[in-house]
Amino acid sequence: MTGPSPAARSTGIEPIAWAGNHLRLLDQTRLPLAEIWIDLHDHREVAAAIRDMRVRGAPAIGVAAAYGVVLAAQQISGRPFPEFRAELEQAILLLGRTRPTAVNLFWALERMRTSMAAARTPDEARARLLAEALSIHTQDIEANRRMGRHGQVLIPDGATVLTHCNAGALATAGYGTALGVIRAAREAGKHIAVVADETRPLLQGARLTAWELARDGIPTTLIADTMAGSFMQRGAVTCCIVGADRIAANGDVANKIGTYQVAVLAKEHSIPFYVAAPISTLDLSLSDGSLIPIEERSAGEVTRFAGVQTAPEGVSIANPAFDITPARYVTAIITERGVARPPYTSSLQALAAGMEHQR
Amino acid sequence: MTGPSPAARSTGIEPIAWAGNHLRLLDQTRLPLAEIWIDLHDHREVAAAIRDMRVRGAPAIGVAAAYGVVLAAQQISGRPFPEFRAELEQAILLLGRTRPTAVNLFWALERMRTSMAAARTPDEARARLLAEALSIHTQDIEANRRMGRHGQVLIPDGATVLTHCNAGALATAGYGTALGVIRAAREAGKHIAVVADETRPLLQGARLTAWELARDGIPTTLIADTMAGSFMQRGAVTCCIVGADRIAANGDVANKIGTYQVAVLAKEHSIPFYVAAPISTLDLSLSDGSLIPIEERSAGEVTRFAGVQTAPEGVSIANPAFDITPARYVTAIITERGVARPPYTSSLQALAAGMEHQR
Repeated sequence: MTGPSPAARSTGIEPIAWAGNHLRLLDQTRLPLAEIWIDLHDHREVAAAIRDMRVRGAPAIGVAAAYGVVLAAQQISGRPFPEFRAELEQAILLLGRTRPTAVNLFWALERMRTSMAAARTPDEARARLLAEALSIHTQDIEANRRMGRHGQVLIPDGATVLTHCNAGALATAGYGTALGVIRAAREAGKHIAVVADETRPLLQGARLTAWELARDGIPTTLIADTMAGSFMQRGAVTCCIVGADRIAANGDVANKIGTYQVAVLAKEHSIPFYVAAPISTLDLSLSDGSLIPIEERSAGEVTRFAGVQTAPEGVSIANPAFDITPARYVTAIITERGVARPPYTSSLQALAAGMEHQR
Repeated sequence: MTGPSPAARSTGIEPIAWAGNHLRLLDQTRLPLAEIWIDLHDHREVAAAIRDMRVRGAPAIGVAAAYGVVLAAQQISGRPFPEFRAELEQAILLLGRTRPTAVNLFWALERMRTSMAAARTPDEARARLLAEALSIHTQDIEANRRMGRHGQVLIPDGATVLTHCNAGALATAGYGTALGVIRAAREAGKHIAVVADETRPLLQGARLTAWELARDGIPTTLIADTMAGSFMQRGAVTCCIVGADRIAANGDVANKIGTYQVAVLAKEHSIPFYVAAPISTLDLSLSDGSLIPIEERSAGEVTRFAGVQTAPEGVSIANPAFDITPARYVTAIITERGVARPPYTSSLQALAAGMEHQR
């Protein structure tokens, strides 16, 4: 029996699994030192896992939240349908309050709401909700694979790709957005190396990106965030690819804090800066990035490093979890429906309307 | 008895002390959690302290190395003068092999060599060496105070100053270069706030800058290195000031890794980017920054912090300790002899020749 090599076929790890009656998540706060799977039976546990970033990455948050709604529906029993619906809505609202920036969360919850609109009994609703969550889940992996095929064309053979944070299999249901493009380039036979920003404060680059790329045998150099500019200056970076948590109608991109400065550095060095994200990351209701809510997280993430205190007591801290990269720094936005180029106001609208878009 | 307030008179901490017959250093690897002073009686201990960054910062390394030569001279006893000189030269070479980038180290060692050129006995040499080390030590603090007076004129009242790494009292014999300019602006009655990059991998911003500015009551916000661009984007930074480890004849600046990208970001946001450094940091023998040797430090500084592993086993690492900021990104270079402006090839030469330079 022959076929593609395991590396070429890999989707990376799949960090979210539906176990028949409950949700299993790979606890991303424990990587890379331990691979611990956690079993969640309650939507409040799912909300906590999202808030604590045991599951993170915009697409993965959407998939996990969808299963959170399924768990809530399972637990509401012996109620008339109107009460069932009201309680379920409370669960959906709770899941929606976990993290404000990634729009995929609200997109997935809205799909869940809509999926049961025509249901007339709790049992029927539960069946439709589970079907919808499974659909969101499998569609995410498929979208990433299509994104990879569209995006890999942009990556030349022999390229060294700088990425920030983790937009990989771990940030999605599998395969990844930015790292999916890299995987697809390798599947197309190209030699690709990766430079991974460690991505302070939570070190998703060191803990997650370096880990999942190592599993797939993709050559990766881990750098501190302070080194990205120096690497570009000496010609060691061919292009940049990152994911996104929300993209406004004009192409402004919200993504992990530090993305903006990578984009500025890329522009200064005439290096292409690509964003890879599914259509569900578009928020065309917002005209530009200034309207995207930016989550501020706790000071302890900055004053400590891997649990070790690094700053003096009482120092003031800022900890915005995301920043906005204006569209003018973005060379192209890679989606599962094709690659959008500037001007984004028209190209993104065309993709959102469902038209396959030529590069 | 009246006088300036303690805060206004502060030189910050003085991390290097000559204790009559040995050297005392504040162990900067233990800050901010513990203030531990270490006693060094041997030049090999001084070399190790420099290599391990118990003392760091270009000017402080120069002062410590000078005392290292004094300690070596004390220990060579009962030898004829030619043998004394030969052994001392070995000690000087050892001290010079500790760290390659900061030119102040070689400048101080050369001053020590020259100081004993006319000596005719070991006792006479020892006396001259001690006098020279004490002179380097006190001149460094005085240079920083003059640098502060020249530089503070550039800082407007109400400014928020972003700094990278630690170019403070802890990086010098006292008062600081970049932080000395901030101290001088405060002494001139200005309200100044600081944004401190934490500065991975060794977190000098979090551990040292935040600590010494808190001691002086200077309002400081600590940020991860990923946040500098976002802060500039939203108008939260008035100007940047950093120190330097070596400045080439054309004004290219070697400084802590991450400095270059701060300078690029400052340019993109039309924010002035200042470098504060004593004349001893100039290396006019090098035409440009590409000739400055860049120290590569161990992988463990990136894969671990305080002993906690953050990256998967076996990942490739880069750890350049410095980068080069091309002169075109540098608004002005502040020295104890005045402020150099572009074109630096002439302005730095004028300062090096001893002429006070008008802003």
